[in-house]
Amino acid sequence: MTKLAVCPGSFDPVTLGHLDVFRAASAIFDAVRVVVVANPDKGPGLFPLDERADLVRRALAESGEDHIAVDVLEGGLLVDYCTAHGAVALVKGVRGARDVDYELPMAAVNRELSGIETVFLPPRPEHALVSSSLVRQLVGLGGDASAYVPAAVLTRLRR
Amino acid sequence: MTKLAVCPGSFDPVTLGHLDVFRAASAIFDAVRVVVVANPDKGPGLFPLDERADLVRRALAESGEDHIAVDVLEGGLLVDYCTAHGAVALVKGVRGARDVDYELPMAAVNRELSGIETVFLPPRPEHALVSSSLVRQLVGLGGDASAYVPAAVLTRLRR
Amino acid sequence: MTKLAVCPGSFDPVTLGHLDVFRAASAIFDAVRVVVVANPDKGPGLFPLDERADLVRRALAESGEDHIAVDVLEGGLLVDYCTAHGAVALVKGVRGARDVDYELPMAAVNRELSGIETVFLPPRPEHALVSSSLVRQLVGLGGDASAYVPAAVLTRLRR
Amino acid sequence: MTKLAVCPGSFDPVTLGHLDVFRAASAIFDAVRVVVVANPDKGPGLFPLDERADLVRRALAESGEDHIAVDVLEGGLLVDYCTAHGAVALVKGVRGARDVDYELPMAAVNRELSGIETVFLPPRPEHALVSSSLVRQLVGLGGDASAYVPAAVLTRLRR
Amino acid sequence: MTKLAVCPGSFDPVTLGHLDVFRAASAIFDAVRVVVVANPDKGPGLFPLDERADLVRRALAESGEDHIAVDVLEGGLLVDYCTAHGAVALVKGVRGARDVDYELPMAAVNRELSGIETVFLPPRPEHALVSSSLVRQLVGLGGDASAYVPAAVLTRLRR
Amino acid sequence: MTKLAVCPGSFDPVTLGHLDVFRAASAIFDAVRVVVVANPDKGPGLFPLDERADLVRRALAESGEDHIAVDVLEGGLLVDYCTAHGAVALVKGVRGARDVDYELPMAAVNRELSGIETVFLPPRPEHALVSSSLVRQLVGLGGDASAYVPAAVLTRLRR
Repeated sequence: MTKLAVCPGSFDPVTLGHLDVFRAASAIFDAVRVVVVANPDKGPGLFPLDERADLVRRALAESGEDHIAVDVLEGGLLVDYCTAHGAVALVKGVRGARDVDYELPMAAVNRELSGIETVFLPPRPEHALVSSSLVRQLVGLGGDASAYVPAAVLTRLRR
Repeated sequence: MTKLAVCPGSFDPVTLGHLDVFRAASAIFDAVRVVVVANPDKGPGLFPLDERADLVRRALAESGEDHIAVDVLEGGLLVDYCTAHGAVALVKGVRGARDVDYELPMAAVNRELSGIETVFLPPRPEHALVSSSLVRQLVGLGGDASAYVPAAVLTRLRR
Repeated sequence: MTKLAVCPGSFDPVTLGHLDVFRAASAIFDAVRVVVVANPDKGPGLFPLDERADLVRRALAESGEDHIAVDVLEGGLLVDYCTAHGAVALVKGVRGARDVDYELPMAAVNRELSGIETVFLPPRPEHALVSSSLVRQLVGLGGDASAYVPAAVLTRLRR
Repeated sequence: MTKLAVCPGSFDPVTLGHLDVFRAASAIFDAVRVVVVANPDKGPGLFPLDERADLVRRALAESGEDHIAVDVLEGGLLVDYCTAHGAVALVKGVRGARDVDYELPMAAVNRELSGIETVFLPPRPEHALVSSSLVRQLVGLGGDASAYVPAAVLTRLRR
Repeated sequence: MTKLAVCPGSFDPVTLGHLDVFRAASAIFDAVRVVVVANPDKGPGLFPLDERADLVRRALAESGEDHIAVDVLEGGLLVDYCTAHGAVALVKGVRGARDVDYELPMAAVNRELSGIETVFLPPRPEHALVSSSLVRQLVGLGGDASAYVPAAVLTRLRR
Repeated sequence: MTKLAVCPGSFDPVTLGHLDVFRAASAIFDAVRVVVVANPDKGPGLFPLDERADLVRRALAESGEDHIAVDVLEGGLLVDYCTAHGAVALVKGVRGARDVDYELPMAAVNRELSGIETVFLPPRPEHALVSSSLVRQLVGLGGDASAYVPAAVLTRLRR
């Protein structure tokens, strides 16, 4: 049986740390699907969901990882999406203790609702401090985000 | 390709929380191998490595999970063991922030040394507070550990 | 002297984890009073304060804990409420490190202002990952919250 | 019914932070009993259990809190002691997130074994960084511990 | 060469904990400059930037620390400000683990962008639980903030 | 006045993360002195104090930082050493929340005893997961530590 993993996130925008996690997931699972979801706690965000997904696709193409599929979940539960696609696991990047404390309750709820497991993957240390919100803040102040995001995002941010 | 995951730990003794993690790993990966390793920070421990492995085997048999292999690593690096067996990932249970802070550096070193990824799996909440050290302490004081360990361990502890 | 404890919170809505804490407080103190307060950081919330209090009352009645009083604090300081009612302690549930870091400064301020102590009570592990915000998010996406909230809340959420 | 709380700890030696917690417990519960227990993780320690208890008694007498009883638990489970004395709660001081992460599993085990609840009490901020181990280390290097321990302990340390 | 340190923050309003950090910075560096910056995550805030800076100046004058300069950064990157003024370090107060987890990524980004180092300074324990947001909340409910803010702020809050 | 900072630690052995911190301290302070101290919690360690200091000296020479002095503190309080040398600050590397929780109490005690401030410096993210204990463990198992320690330490470890 093909083991499919889903990497959910708001990816607004995708960072080099996220790409690390996608790559690691791809080394571990037979197939990987990145799913862009709205985060209700974060408001409308910088980019619309479709554009975020498009940027993920370009970034994966840049690095030759275009066997990783990218999708958008417009509404409904993530676990329903996973069940519909036959995913065996959700994959979340964890940069440290704070991320885990935030993710553990979600993981428990998702398992309770659907039986699906969540696995946490650490990014490489040099990317462990990057976050989308830091990138948005940096760009908002006119700073240079080239050390934190893939080229496709950088190009888009500069427009 | 068969995706093999290795679950390393001192398992002195194995708890219901560990079994949760083995089961979850087994749902996600094609094959799972539990590897009992000595923890140099913890001294000789309660049981010798071979007996710990035997208790894991019995606990897995009890719960019908005997397709999970169990092994002992007497010396040498865990990543060398993984490379020799073609494992794609190490799997560690994480009960919370403290565990992750402890495991992240090991995960980084293991990736640096061998390219192998480490995935963190949360146990079910009702097992999230159990640890081998708490079991050892409880048993040492004459307490009843039946809520925390599989039957095989309980039988052994009572001897 | 009757030792009265006050359990403050936004309870939007009350969860099985909160009920655990109310019960534990009730085992420890002579009398317990749940006080629903607005959380200025969280906006208007899902239910108005009065309805939140009503749901707490129904949930307590369901589980035979109706000796626990329920009140709403519309404005003013919680410590003034406590002083007026002669409470000896505030009781807060703590699910883990993150909760404690958030609650410690409040506890210090409340002691400084009024001399009242705050005690932290852990919920049972199986309820330790539930939160009102997770319930709101789950329900907002059409998910089933029956494992996390009392029947009275479930009925109300389904309307 | 008299509500008795038990404050367990190794108290090697008792600090001003511990005394804060005893006092707060005494404001909240009808009766308080400090119980000195050996910590198997910490080796023999600086003072024998009896002397630690004696120092707690002297410190409580100094500050006019001698209605708080002090006892030594030589062996056996703390929860059995609590059951035998009809205690309704264990009381532990928590200085921050680290303490809580350490205490939560013990609290869960103690509730599972005996139904007894554990409540966490924060010390006053000015005492929140003191610990017995820091005092032992300071004294071992010839430093002045007078800001951290009661007079009775200081006198004993200087002998 | 004069070693200049910059203490950035939203200081809305400045607290006794912030003043602790300014004083410590002043003991360590040749010159210190407090810089009031808008925090985009926090909305408009209680006071406009200029008034916050004015309150910092008054508080520093009160305590005889008026050799510490105070400035407002209206827009642009903090690191550009530091480079323009020849600062060798950014100084941030850290009250505990939570603050550090929040500040570490910023520190990494600021070093990456400009080579400037960030140093973390702990406030005195008795001020370690104070925060501007707690002060705002307390004042909003009609509470007395005199234990947490300098006299200049207290006077302004009472108007 | 020359501002001297002291970087204390057990440095058993010194890592690339430590060297990062020494360099950052050197950019900030007029003069820096690394002081090797015994850690009573850690037993005799891998290398004697003098050899640890020698390895720090060689590592600093390798990277052209030999203006940083290196010393051994055989006994007595670190703050007495600082006072004797006129240091204005202690400098400690902090890799994350765990380190800070551990260091804050020491910083408070050192300030209480002598008035000296402690500043925390984060290492570069790519070195943030290295620790001496991980290096010791890795080397003990025959692993390759070249990514974590300076050449001088590597040469010594291979002997």
